[in-house]
Amino acid sequence: MERVCNVALIGQQFMGRAHSNAYLKVAKFFDVPLTPVLHTVAARDQEGVERFAQRWGWQQATTRWREIADNDAINLVDVCTPNDVHAEQSIAMLEAGKHVACEKPLADTLEHARAMKAAAAKAKGKTFVWFNYRRCPAVALAYQLVREGRIGRLYHVRASYLQSWGGPDTPLVWRFEKKRAGSGAHGDLNAHIIDLARFLTGDQITEVTGGIAETFIKERVKPGSKSGERGRSDVDDCVVFLARFKQGAVASFEATRLATGHQNANYIELNGSAGALRWNFEDMNLLWFYDNQEDARTAGWRRIMCTSGGHHPYADAWWPDAHIIGYEHGFVNMTADILRVLGGQQPLLPLPDFADAYETQRVLEAALLAAKHRSAVKMSEVK
Amino acid sequence: MERVCNVALIGQQFMGRAHSNAYLKVAKFFDVPLTPVLHTVAARDQEGVERFAQRWGWQQATTRWREIADNDAINLVDVCTPNDVHAEQSIAMLEAGKHVACEKPLADTLEHARAMKAAAAKAKGKTFVWFNYRRCPAVALAYQLVREGRIGRLYHVRASYLQSWGGPDTPLVWRFEKKRAGSGAHGDLNAHIIDLARFLTGDQITEVTGGIAETFIKERVKPGSKSGERGRSDVDDCVVFLARFKQGAVASFEATRLATGHQNANYIELNGSAGALRWNFEDMNLLWFYDNQEDARTAGWRRIMCTSGGHHPYADAWWPDAHIIGYEHGFVNMTADILRVLGGQQPLLPLPDFADAYETQRVLEAALLAAKHRSAVKMSEVK
Amino acid sequence: MERVCNVALIGQQFMGRAHSNAYLKVAKFFDVPLTPVLHTVAARDQEGVERFAQRWGWQQATTRWREIADNDAINLVDVCTPNDVHAEQSIAMLEAGKHVACEKPLADTLEHARAMKAAAAKAKGKTFVWFNYRRCPAVALAYQLVREGRIGRLYHVRASYLQSWGGPDTPLVWRFEKKRAGSGAHGDLNAHIIDLARFLTGDQITEVTGGIAETFIKERVKPGSKSGERGRSDVDDCVVFLARFKQGAVASFEATRLATGHQNANYIELNGSAGALRWNFEDMNLLWFYDNQEDARTAGWRRIMCTSGGHHPYADAWWPDAHIIGYEHGFVNMTADILRVLGGQQPLLPLPDFADAYETQRVLEAALLAAKHRSAVKMSEVK
Amino acid sequence: MERVCNVALIGQQFMGRAHSNAYLKVAKFFDVPLTPVLHTVAARDQEGVERFAQRWGWQQATTRWREIADNDAINLVDVCTPNDVHAEQSIAMLEAGKHVACEKPLADTLEHARAMKAAAAKAKGKTFVWFNYRRCPAVALAYQLVREGRIGRLYHVRASYLQSWGGPDTPLVWRFEKKRAGSGAHGDLNAHIIDLARFLTGDQITEVTGGIAETFIKERVKPGSKSGERGRSDVDDCVVFLARFKQGAVASFEATRLATGHQNANYIELNGSAGALRWNFEDMNLLWFYDNQEDARTAGWRRIMCTSGGHHPYADAWWPDAHIIGYEHGFVNMTADILRVLGGQQPLLPLPDFADAYETQRVLEAALLAAKHRSAVKMSEVK
Repeated sequence: MERVCNVALIGQQFMGRAHSNAYLKVAKFFDVPLTPVLHTVAARDQEGVERFAQRWGWQQATTRWREIADNDAINLVDVCTPNDVHAEQSIAMLEAGKHVACEKPLADTLEHARAMKAAAAKAKGKTFVWFNYRRCPAVALAYQLVREGRIGRLYHVRASYLQSWGGPDTPLVWRFEKKRAGSGAHGDLNAHIIDLARFLTGDQITEVTGGIAETFIKERVKPGSKSGERGRSDVDDCVVFLARFKQGAVASFEATRLATGHQNANYIELNGSAGALRWNFEDMNLLWFYDNQEDARTAGWRRIMCTSGGHHPYADAWWPDAHIIGYEHGFVNMTADILRVLGGQQPLLPLPDFADAYETQRVLEAALLAAKHRSAVKMSEVK
Repeated sequence: MERVCNVALIGQQFMGRAHSNAYLKVAKFFDVPLTPVLHTVAARDQEGVERFAQRWGWQQATTRWREIADNDAINLVDVCTPNDVHAEQSIAMLEAGKHVACEKPLADTLEHARAMKAAAAKAKGKTFVWFNYRRCPAVALAYQLVREGRIGRLYHVRASYLQSWGGPDTPLVWRFEKKRAGSGAHGDLNAHIIDLARFLTGDQITEVTGGIAETFIKERVKPGSKSGERGRSDVDDCVVFLARFKQGAVASFEATRLATGHQNANYIELNGSAGALRWNFEDMNLLWFYDNQEDARTAGWRRIMCTSGGHHPYADAWWPDAHIIGYEHGFVNMTADILRVLGGQQPLLPLPDFADAYETQRVLEAALLAAKHRSAVKMSEVK
Repeated sequence: MERVCNVALIGQQFMGRAHSNAYLKVAKFFDVPLTPVLHTVAARDQEGVERFAQRWGWQQATTRWREIADNDAINLVDVCTPNDVHAEQSIAMLEAGKHVACEKPLADTLEHARAMKAAAAKAKGKTFVWFNYRRCPAVALAYQLVREGRIGRLYHVRASYLQSWGGPDTPLVWRFEKKRAGSGAHGDLNAHIIDLARFLTGDQITEVTGGIAETFIKERVKPGSKSGERGRSDVDDCVVFLARFKQGAVASFEATRLATGHQNANYIELNGSAGALRWNFEDMNLLWFYDNQEDARTAGWRRIMCTSGGHHPYADAWWPDAHIIGYEHGFVNMTADILRVLGGQQPLLPLPDFADAYETQRVLEAALLAAKHRSAVKMSEVK
Repeated sequence: MERVCNVALIGQQFMGRAHSNAYLKVAKFFDVPLTPVLHTVAARDQEGVERFAQRWGWQQATTRWREIADNDAINLVDVCTPNDVHAEQSIAMLEAGKHVACEKPLADTLEHARAMKAAAAKAKGKTFVWFNYRRCPAVALAYQLVREGRIGRLYHVRASYLQSWGGPDTPLVWRFEKKRAGSGAHGDLNAHIIDLARFLTGDQITEVTGGIAETFIKERVKPGSKSGERGRSDVDDCVVFLARFKQGAVASFEATRLATGHQNANYIELNGSAGALRWNFEDMNLLWFYDNQEDARTAGWRRIMCTSGGHHPYADAWWPDAHIIGYEHGFVNMTADILRVLGGQQPLLPLPDFADAYETQRVLEAALLAAKHRSAVKMSEVK
């Protein structure tokens, strides 16, 4: 008999849509031990949540997210709300005995994140954080290659997440309000590349040695304002920072919404004694690998198309070689791993939980402190 | 009240899967006038078809495809079988008054294709052929730019579809048997790029001026054979040919399964007096455009990331800018257009029907004749 | 004591300049057994040739090229004139006992080429043809890899030389006049890629199976004409053709001056059972290599930067790794090999002589015949 | 009558060779008001300097560089020695009334650099510093586009110079000794990209907000040591730092000799409100430009091949379009501009003098201070 996992989703915006799609597709493409059921969706707007439920096939819709905690049928709660409510919602669900999958960054503040980590430690439910890019096949292959020693002693980590939608004409949506979002590009984008750097290297950051946080556009038009009323945009447009890893690597990170020319360039590169790796989400199916142990005559960056069933992570589930996959597939791949874990199996690659995401949040915090104090910050000082 | 389109699918292999996914997703991402219902799937293997129906949510499964014709509830029949049965199945369904969407190439032989075109002309149902690459947003944008005069007088069409899975170790699957497949790389891959060339240029081929069809690997191990028994691989591994378009352009086409290094390089380039375009499926979200009317000082190939909602075809339906889409999205986009047509609306771009695909089939035939006779073949000679 | 090679140059246009630069630089960068002396330059225009000699350091200038034959001091004659006088000048110099290095294509007509080959066979001087692209380090590495079996059984050769300077606004220079140039893009560009294909594969073409030669722009303004007087442009703007190699490979060739967007895209690709290679002059320092014997998990096109001294052909002579070289360096590298041969040493790679270039000329001829007769032409029919 | 510029060169290693080549070629390719004469070369090794003079055509060779100061015939002295003697030699030559062109970085220490700037201010001779990359045509075009407002308000500067030759097997050459080189990757590579950033933006750095300097490989084998004796490598292998520009831009810089996979990736990118630019020396003929004022539908990074005579800086001097140039051409282009200035003409683009290079040296110093003190350093504190 088919085993199911009843899912409740809180939030119905961009991430609500991406996650709904993942629940819809996962059991079609993967053999998962639990089949997800789109049980309940909760959001603030009555009409909106009903329309969303109708479209995506959620069985129930509600504007009262706390009802989910009380519903014994629900196994997994997926938190896709703005960052300022992650803690409240996640903790409530953990206390109700649910498994919780929360969007990144873990929280709006380090204090909230710490509370979430603590709640997770006490809970019987499992926690997950949607660092979806770990599940791009090229990133997963990179993870494997690092573990196989193909990079060797790591010298450099070079990570940047460049977008350009935050120009002066973009209105004051919630992502530009500090009280809702916690931060700007930093929590939205640096969170991803810090996670990727920690995940790929398996190492931890010991110091942020310098940082800059800048708000270039300080006022924006309020959304829907007919008179062009403007409000304060008080989150960072960009945060860049430098860091050291415990085993010695030197790292740089940059997140920005004003990198004209780049729409979604989530980039990471590792350079080591035995080899090097680089990946850019805009060509997400490709991993570039440089094998430094190859004969110098024929050594070169290799363009690895990570779509080959039987050879590349998650590729069996999808299409023939080089019939490329896209953004949404990272979520489906991650959902498959979550369902494996909830069904008692191993994920293909480690999944980030609240404790893990808390470490990423500490690095976010350290970068802001370094920018604020214009000096280095040791991670041991960030609690 | 919601209007539905009951769909029947014949075939449950690669294309059956791609199409099922499209029916599953289309009404989630697009506002379509008809909602597709996964009504019936038919395939030869009882157990297989039931498992497939269960996984994908088809309401009924059958091993007798002819039953579909008799079921008045079914509106659209989707033919995803090997090429040698396209004609029989499509014609039966057209005669039963169904709309038919058939996989490409239209048929295994020109004779079959001609019969299908004739049946379509008499039928009240509409016909569609799954030339899915027309619906990649970058291709759709290319189509628009050509029509806006951004290419000008066309000099060159350069099209190739390079794969490499057909090496000597690949077993003798149906795609290598002439009686099942009709042809090899030619019908499988050249069909796509001939369609793209005809679609983008809006012009017709008047002559194939030379061609080569080659079977490099003449024997292959039979699938499942324990003793390594070998059989004859009698389709082309590659077909290359040259052609002229009515308005004067010079064109080359190449399809091969032995282009070591390329997995799915479906490529087309147009060079004209006012500009040039090129596209490669392996970077399907990108269109490269060269504006020849730009100042020579700053002119250059532009890398257009065709993912911007409000600006690029089909992009509104999907994710934020540069959150890239993949292979399967071409099918979803095409399904949206099919449902628009069946619901009385306009497709975003012209859809290929049997009459249109028959013209592509004629070019396929002309190329084989040119290769066989080692001389030019005028299209007027190919009936 | 230093041994010298007295050089005479006929022609002072584009190639005269490129060759003068090569003679100037070669002994600075290479240890060559003979030092070239810029002895005499000959050209039709008295004032022009004197100015050229002055600028480049040629010791003597003359408008009477035949005087070179009579000058016993001159060892090597370098023919850089339009194609229609290659035969007359080269044969005269061979008969005078000189070594001759002639620009490509060998001649304007096959008849002339045949006479040149015959003269070379009887002469005591050595002959060379300036197929300079063989000496790009990336091409030279490709040559070595093919010989080491890294490509295996060859399936495909895909060669094109795409330029775009031949639009309707380009005036009627000698390159557009058949009586001067012999052909258009064909002799100018296809000559290069036919040579590259023959050189890299080590195989010979046995049949041209189809071809198209097209003159899109049939009239052009005469250079210097104040009244805009127009004359007939009677050479091909493009020639594309298909061919078979003796050992079975299927090949395509394309040369055009109307490939909008490409300025100098001299491209060749080989796909074989063991690997694949591709090279584009616009990134001339790079060779892309795909090793098909690598583990499928990490196989990919390798970007080999062919600039590493001690590892890559000709790289010792130049700059540190990835301090890239350009167009002119192919000529310098070739001049080094010519001087090695004249000094009794081995060239790094085989140099094309008149007999070799005659084979390329036969393929050029076969392609034109195939285009003219709209049918295949066996090479054995082209004498 | 021809006007000449008698040049003396001090140093005969890598840069001595690159500069000799420039003097040899410049008057062949450019119409310069002064023709350079290779008058005297000085270096420490008697036999070496004589061989060098012989090969490159220097009229005289000496081991006593001070003699140059006493030779009235010499106009321009070119200093290509290790960084620790730049000051002594340059100041001596300025005091002797010579024009001086010094290799970069200006000096080994800020104190030396300051003395050089002061000497230049008092001297009647002109000074130049060999920041050769300014003269790559693509960089020069970038400079022009910035000035034309095509970038608009500048948000980001992203500069890195990635090499990989500094692995543990590389012996202890002078570049790894602090007393000779002053610094490692920092002075060698960051000097270039700081200069490029200052040159392109026309803005000045006001603060270095954080930095890391790291020596990963602390011991190396002494060159020529048979017993494998090791010595201390006491320069940085990498220096990364963050900075702010006066007009608000946020910048990052990275120089390293351990970026496995990159041989000479000198990279700079600017993102502004109106557009963006990026350039990588490994494709030095290309400038990538993103016009943010273009219609979003067809906007994209443009690959501008900066080789078109009549349109691109310095391109007239060289070969036809896309017949690419290489590393050495930056030096030739710069030599042309130096000769223009010495001959009373304008350079095509501004040339860096000692005062200008001193500003770059101050930034180098600030970065080291920031790394040492683990805190931000205002440029006003670096004198």
